[in-house]
Amino acid sequence: MAETTYAKGLEGVVAAESEICRIDGEQGKLYYLGYSIEDLARYSDFEETTYLLLYGRLPNRDEMEIFSKRMRASRDLAPEILDMVRNFPKDAHPMELLQSVISYLSGYIQHRIQHSATCNCRDTLHQVVQLASVVAAWQRFRESKDYIQPRQDLSHGANFLYMMRGQEPDEYEGKVMDTCLVLHAEHGFNASTFTARVVASTLSTCYSSISAAIGSLYGSLHGGANEKAMAMVEEIGSKDRAADWVNRALDNKQKVMGMGHRVYKAKDPRAIIMEEFLAELSKRKADTRSYDILKIVEKTFRDRMEEKGKPIYPNVDFFSGAVYDLLGIPKILFTPIFAVSRVSGWLAHILEQRRDNRLYRPKSLYVGTQPREWVTMEKR
Amino acid sequence: MAETTYAKGLEGVVAAESEICRIDGEQGKLYYLGYSIEDLARYSDFEETTYLLLYGRLPNRDEMEIFSKRMRASRDLAPEILDMVRNFPKDAHPMELLQSVISYLSGYIQHRIQHSATCNCRDTLHQVVQLASVVAAWQRFRESKDYIQPRQDLSHGANFLYMMRGQEPDEYEGKVMDTCLVLHAEHGFNASTFTARVVASTLSTCYSSISAAIGSLYGSLHGGANEKAMAMVEEIGSKDRAADWVNRALDNKQKVMGMGHRVYKAKDPRAIIMEEFLAELSKRKADTRSYDILKIVEKTFRDRMEEKGKPIYPNVDFFSGAVYDLLGIPKILFTPIFAVSRVSGWLAHILEQRRDNRLYRPKSLYVGTQPREWVTMEKR
Repeated sequence: MAETTYAKGLEGVVAAESEICRIDGEQGKLYYLGYSIEDLARYSDFEETTYLLLYGRLPNRDEMEIFSKRMRASRDLAPEILDMVRNFPKDAHPMELLQSVISYLSGYIQHRIQHSATCNCRDTLHQVVQLASVVAAWQRFRESKDYIQPRQDLSHGANFLYMMRGQEPDEYEGKVMDTCLVLHAEHGFNASTFTARVVASTLSTCYSSISAAIGSLYGSLHGGANEKAMAMVEEIGSKDRAADWVNRALDNKQKVMGMGHRVYKAKDPRAIIMEEFLAELSKRKADTRSYDILKIVEKTFRDRMEEKGKPIYPNVDFFSGAVYDLLGIPKILFTPIFAVSRVSGWLAHILEQRRDNRLYRPKSLYVGTQPREWVTMEKR
Repeated sequence: MAETTYAKGLEGVVAAESEICRIDGEQGKLYYLGYSIEDLARYSDFEETTYLLLYGRLPNRDEMEIFSKRMRASRDLAPEILDMVRNFPKDAHPMELLQSVISYLSGYIQHRIQHSATCNCRDTLHQVVQLASVVAAWQRFRESKDYIQPRQDLSHGANFLYMMRGQEPDEYEGKVMDTCLVLHAEHGFNASTFTARVVASTLSTCYSSISAAIGSLYGSLHGGANEKAMAMVEEIGSKDRAADWVNRALDNKQKVMGMGHRVYKAKDPRAIIMEEFLAELSKRKADTRSYDILKIVEKTFRDRMEEKGKPIYPNVDFFSGAVYDLLGIPKILFTPIFAVSRVSGWLAHILEQRRDNRLYRPKSLYVGTQPREWVTMEKR
């Protein structure tokens, strides 16, 4: 591009080509490396999906076994990391703890020799894995409970629930948690992924890049929507109040969390899967309160929108908060869990950025004061 | 901008307007808020320059006194932070320690209530100040020495040298160190500043944003040039070998560190000031080795380039490494010291970003595989 373009917020600018994620917003389809999110949710798990994202293809049985073994062996936290988690003030936000721990982990990589800008992130999977352990440990310490050693016979999602609760989840809960991680692992060029690529483009390390991405995900314009959707459910309180609440919110031009999506014009395919989980979990736990409220919120909202000829559908965040809630996960962990999952996508983008790197270096337009004389302290 | 533009690395794209820094590359001039870098180096100090960057104007005497007092009172590190610094493996890189500590510090802000995305970074100066303390403490621990409590009667630069050495620097050393921080405090829309603004644009906190920026500065395409320039001086070893070394490097199309600048077509104004410091420090310390080598490198390089009609001048990194070396600072701290200084510029950009925020959200172009069928493990 020869001339200079002013694009506030980089709107309408294509910053890179990517082979990782395809989002078909019109049809409501999402693919990682060509595989549909429905197939991934049904047939894959978080470890295999991570392999797919990092290597660009599905592993055969031997490859998967080695990879999974390596991931599971990396779950335990070093004493120094546990100290950091334990010492972090309990009323601060765990996202900044996660951001901090990931940078700090760079010092704890076994093969320090590979810890350079060009290291193969695939060899440093402990950073992917340990995010889950840090979130679980933080929750334990907040409740004045002890750190739970990870288990190697559980999936990534099930082990997270185990480390958080101290009790093994049942098989269905483990499957739901693990699949939630699959559903959030990748979603193209959002703000945090873009941040990861910007930092990676300086040839910084994958630790630095992921840490920075966590910082972006912490921003309220990015992560946090499912936390707010769950807060909405709690505010509504019971299903008989749901319709009124939505009508009042719409009358007051208030935002209804989790409805609509910038990219999906059809139903977010992840929301469909998430709704199935919520329905089944509610039944199994004999607690349909959140599900009932959400279904009325959805119906009331959609009816109102359809009057205006604007069909709007729930997105993944609409149901995921209620799913996490039924799994016993407190709201403050929702965005950290997003990071636990998305880290695989970030790593895939970091590797892709490095394969054909160009430093991201946009310009700014100077609109400040012209050169001026120095003024001594006396004359100010 | 209506249509979509592909700009790899965002080249030629203006991402934002800014009032902070003006760089006149043709004339070799640099201004912070309209004040020339020469005036800032001569009349100001790092604390006042930080005030200028954060408030957009110079403080009067009362304002400066309050501001300086607050900065100096924030220098000491909490025991938990000291533990992190002490525990960080000695053969890891301190940039990732800095990145980690800054996020972690978010938990230690006194007025936790202000610790939100919209907090006024000007109230959280301890993160600016404590970067210097962390770098000094890290160096002490590496040498198996004790942490030195900060002093409140010294400038930011002088106190850094004091905390690193355990002995008060002389007045001239203190002035040089502090002015080096002034010279590096701001330089427009580079990769780390862009990173800080990208993260800030999600409405994340200033801690998260600065931490991310440190990650970018760590990248070898961004920070680290003065470290390499000093390594070059050490490799050359003595002035009689300098001319040959440069000629051989140029013949082999090898990069000569610190010569030329992407933006400055005239001499980098910071290099002129830095050269004066180096000349005077070399004289005072009766150690002119580095200075002599650098002057011959510069002359040989420029003579060769002028033969081709391409005048190329040294940039700030050409001399700054040798200045730090004479101040007793080891090479591994050069990039961390860059962060100690640039944090003021990052904060200025974070505040500016928030005043008229738009999420940075460029697109990517999907060039990957088309949707494909799931393949079971047996068939892979």
